[in-house]
Amino acid sequence: MLKFVKAPRKIITKALDKELGFGKVLTTEKRLMLADGSFNVHRESIGVWDNTYHFLVTMKWSTFFLLALLFFISINLVFATMYVLIGVEHFTGMSPGGPAQDFVNAFFFSSQTLTTVGYGHISPTGMITSIVASIESFFGLLTFALISGLLYGRFSRPAARVVFSENILVAPYKESQGLMFRMVNARKSELIETEVQILMSFNQEDGAGNTTRKFYPLNLEISKISFFSMSWTVVHPLFDKSPIKDFSKEDFENANAEFMVLVKGIDETSQQLVHARHSYTAENMVWNAKFVPILKYNASGIPKILTSLVGHYEKVA
Amino acid sequence: MLKFVKAPRKIITKALDKELGFGKVLTTEKRLMLADGSFNVHRESIGVWDNTYHFLVTMKWSTFFLLALLFFISINLVFATMYVLIGVEHFTGMSPGGPAQDFVNAFFFSSQTLTTVGYGHISPTGMITSIVASIESFFGLLTFALISGLLYGRFSRPAARVVFSENILVAPYKESQGLMFRMVNARKSELIETEVQILMSFNQEDGAGNTTRKFYPLNLEISKISFFSMSWTVVHPLFDKSPIKDFSKEDFENANAEFMVLVKGIDETSQQLVHARHSYTAENMVWNAKFVPILKYNASGIPKILTSLVGHYEKVA
Amino acid sequence: MLKFVKAPRKIITKALDKELGFGKVLTTEKRLMLADGSFNVHRESIGVWDNTYHFLVTMKWSTFFLLALLFFISINLVFATMYVLIGVEHFTGMSPGGPAQDFVNAFFFSSQTLTTVGYGHISPTGMITSIVASIESFFGLLTFALISGLLYGRFSRPAARVVFSENILVAPYKESQGLMFRMVNARKSELIETEVQILMSFNQEDGAGNTTRKFYPLNLEISKISFFSMSWTVVHPLFDKSPIKDFSKEDFENANAEFMVLVKGIDETSQQLVHARHSYTAENMVWNAKFVPILKYNASGIPKILTSLVGHYEKVA
Amino acid sequence: MLKFVKAPRKIITKALDKELGFGKVLTTEKRLMLADGSFNVHRESIGVWDNTYHFLVTMKWSTFFLLALLFFISINLVFATMYVLIGVEHFTGMSPGGPAQDFVNAFFFSSQTLTTVGYGHISPTGMITSIVASIESFFGLLTFALISGLLYGRFSRPAARVVFSENILVAPYKESQGLMFRMVNARKSELIETEVQILMSFNQEDGAGNTTRKFYPLNLEISKISFFSMSWTVVHPLFDKSPIKDFSKEDFENANAEFMVLVKGIDETSQQLVHARHSYTAENMVWNAKFVPILKYNASGIPKILTSLVGHYEKVA
Repeated sequence: MLKFVKAPRKIITKALDKELGFGKVLTTEKRLMLADGSFNVHRESIGVWDNTYHFLVTMKWSTFFLLALLFFISINLVFATMYVLIGVEHFTGMSPGGPAQDFVNAFFFSSQTLTTVGYGHISPTGMITSIVASIESFFGLLTFALISGLLYGRFSRPAARVVFSENILVAPYKESQGLMFRMVNARKSELIETEVQILMSFNQEDGAGNTTRKFYPLNLEISKISFFSMSWTVVHPLFDKSPIKDFSKEDFENANAEFMVLVKGIDETSQQLVHARHSYTAENMVWNAKFVPILKYNASGIPKILTSLVGHYEKVA
Repeated sequence: MLKFVKAPRKIITKALDKELGFGKVLTTEKRLMLADGSFNVHRESIGVWDNTYHFLVTMKWSTFFLLALLFFISINLVFATMYVLIGVEHFTGMSPGGPAQDFVNAFFFSSQTLTTVGYGHISPTGMITSIVASIESFFGLLTFALISGLLYGRFSRPAARVVFSENILVAPYKESQGLMFRMVNARKSELIETEVQILMSFNQEDGAGNTTRKFYPLNLEISKISFFSMSWTVVHPLFDKSPIKDFSKEDFENANAEFMVLVKGIDETSQQLVHARHSYTAENMVWNAKFVPILKYNASGIPKILTSLVGHYEKVA
Repeated sequence: MLKFVKAPRKIITKALDKELGFGKVLTTEKRLMLADGSFNVHRESIGVWDNTYHFLVTMKWSTFFLLALLFFISINLVFATMYVLIGVEHFTGMSPGGPAQDFVNAFFFSSQTLTTVGYGHISPTGMITSIVASIESFFGLLTFALISGLLYGRFSRPAARVVFSENILVAPYKESQGLMFRMVNARKSELIETEVQILMSFNQEDGAGNTTRKFYPLNLEISKISFFSMSWTVVHPLFDKSPIKDFSKEDFENANAEFMVLVKGIDETSQQLVHARHSYTAENMVWNAKFVPILKYNASGIPKILTSLVGHYEKVA
Repeated sequence: MLKFVKAPRKIITKALDKELGFGKVLTTEKRLMLADGSFNVHRESIGVWDNTYHFLVTMKWSTFFLLALLFFISINLVFATMYVLIGVEHFTGMSPGGPAQDFVNAFFFSSQTLTTVGYGHISPTGMITSIVASIESFFGLLTFALISGLLYGRFSRPAARVVFSENILVAPYKESQGLMFRMVNARKSELIETEVQILMSFNQEDGAGNTTRKFYPLNLEISKISFFSMSWTVVHPLFDKSPIKDFSKEDFENANAEFMVLVKGIDETSQQLVHARHSYTAENMVWNAKFVPILKYNASGIPKILTSLVGHYEKVA
């Protein structure tokens, strides 16, 4: 359901359709970026291995540890089965019981081998059990080497953790109005030379009666700061050259407007360039409101940023 | 077999021979870059260690694990031989049998020491066996530390995985024709600020009757995009200033034409600059064809890139 | 207590208030940066995990090892308690004694399991003890994998170690005076393409009688060098366009002047961009003094930088 | 022994003394850079820890492994002494012998604990021995975690391995002469966007009769190439604007001339910027010579760079 919206005035920057890389999805009615900054598009994977590292280092910590535990148990189940099939009589210290008892003993021997704890109260005596146990301990070390690398990869992955206000406000600004959101760096690690960019996309009718999705960069009051150590209210002045200065609430909704926020800066702990993204839709817009103060001074006069207030706003007359 | 080809018209960009670094191989008839993007040139190595890391982190996973297993077995064979030569009577729990049985026992003791599983049903009692076992366990830890580092190095190596169309098409473009190929980012990790460059090389006769290999950059419709999250059809317009706008199929073949594609962008998971390369020769050119659509919308309207269709094309009249 | 200070002359560079990112703390009387270069502002944290890596890799080495040891002991106390609660009769080799003796034995079994040393003179026989021991050894490997990654993260963290002079001097320079401090790269690793910037902030009255904090960059004699292998005396000439050329000692103090020093360069060992910061206040200023020589030649004529003299100065008439 | 040399003509680029960072060592008669590219200057260290990582990852592999082995032996000697002092009667399986035998047994128990191999034929029974053994196994894991990290740090350290010709030649070039050296990338990993710079320094008398050391950049025929996959002969044309175009062999020697070569490029395996440096003095100059061909084609027409010939030259009439 693409609707006609006002054409932006001529003075604005040229539309960016192709330069952004979204040339092929111009007619989608879905937002292009989800609120968490990931793109709302799927790509068919080719081969499973290519994305394994990405998958393992970006999943949640709880999922990661659960997966590691399941992997540990599965491997032990596999090797325990092999030991039972070979025969528990090929072990010293593993007194044969019923099948269940044998399997349990084999499982524990397996786990003692995989982790290389090797108490020795159970030990392989036969040739084949010795070979399998040898392979298992080798495999165990490889596995834990892998987990070791993944843990480091997860920890050290350069990533910004920027908290964005939930809403984007139309607030009083200078003699007119400004479109603004607020953000705070939620990490103790400083962000240096931080830049922000807002890309707006909306449905627009061309001269010939066709409606396509267009992309425009919005100019900002300040687009780069040296140190992102405070909160930052990013402002797009809704006058002069703004392509959306005369838009009403309905215009934004009808045009399926989306504001994509792109932040980049240098993370000081890892000294690497990091990116953060966020997206607002017309539904996230609040009119005639301004953000409440987020800075408070403690008793000794040192300022403190109250991160949890990042999205709090109050109505203005 | 260098052949005469048409000299490009004067308006084009200056040839890049020396600036590319290929000044010395101008007369080769071989392609300069293989299809996988590696250079078709060998360099004599000086010292084996310098390239070890490169070799170990770029080999296939299957080869890597096979090599690790062979290394594990070899080390155990070496140490087992040493233990047998010292004498199995210097071990507790290693009841002497025939030479074969002794070697097998020594091998298993070695593997239990190398992996530090150390069950203890066999243990060294003599001075010399204790020293060797001590060194082996130390060596084992170093080895697995190394493998641990290599596994991480392999996993975290910043690399793009861009899938290129197998062919480069001469397709209708605007009022004329364009030379185009298509590519998709096959990783879930986004590629940001992606740039592409096409360098064309072909044999060309200079005024004095000598034929040399020349390099020209081809100008592109779009050479940089902000987000490479969709597919990207890279287009060189075959008109205006193109040095090859009047070339026929035979001209390309006679000139031994090669198109080297250079892609770079920032990988979002590692936040590092990554490169991908590809090369097309005259044999990969398809005339009067265009790529089939690669984008499909699922039931909820979210676009999906069908990566496997990246190289599919259809003939145009 | 904001005081009036002279307004800088018109010729100087525009104030940088907003571009720096400190727009919101203009009225603070506290210094904005501590002497060690950290910002004098707190940010409320959201979630504990986000800052864990930053916390663990930036703490002092002694604290890190102490924390690791405490963690090791705590984990063993937890598992020892579990083993005692399950019952020491479920272990081979753990002859029941009094409760204290049992706990001690359980503690040692736990530590042998966690570190996977697993001598085996104590070993689990019961089902539940075997399960717990299995989990503990798995947990132990994860823990040491984590510590392994953290140790590497600490070691390899790209960071400059620049030693700054304690004071900032007003010394004779050319036909007039210069504001200068001295610094030395205290690492053996070279710093390449090093840049320095001084940002000065002070209280200033605007036309309307309001006093606000303003930020000005100070121009430098040399602001970038190719190799920071010697000492570097950074000089701001106190004439021509300097906004502070007529300031007296009292002016600096009344204005609550602060000089923030920002250094960046490429560390040669890690080949990464690194930053160093330092801050001087009016209290650190020394008038009519110059730094003593820091370079000495050894017997074979090779220069040596005496890093410990970096802040030594002598009075000039 | 600073000598007068011809003043360079006015057309050349301005001298770079201060911008290079060597301002303070202008009067040295020693070369500023050693042939391996390290600076010929010492810096007093402050604290030992700061340079440990740099030291451990840049030392030779043989030294590194020897150091690791010595560390392993030392730790075992320390713990063995502690075990003997506590008393060998607090161990199961360590039958008391003479003091020497006791120490040897304690040493082996220590190594089995440190590496966590823990066979168990010797095990601690007393409280104090158990505590010490527990600490040793913890310490052992930390140590091997550290070595693991260092091994990875050594392997993955981004570094170029560029082989330079031993000499810098004055060879025929165009209608005149050029100053040239040759280099080859000795790694299989490609170097992308490689840049080279030559800085020349020599003693020069100013108008007032003082002789100081001056630094000049030398302009190059080609200073940047896209792919450093072949050999590269870097040429400074000795005519037009060259500050040294009329220098004789004696002039270079009298002026204590030094040519510092700075190479940087992107290593493709690690995708990081890497640097290489080299330095030539007047003694390395060879007059009227040219490099012999370094490129040969194999039977299938693929070019091969004979790296070992990088410095080979032949005299020209």
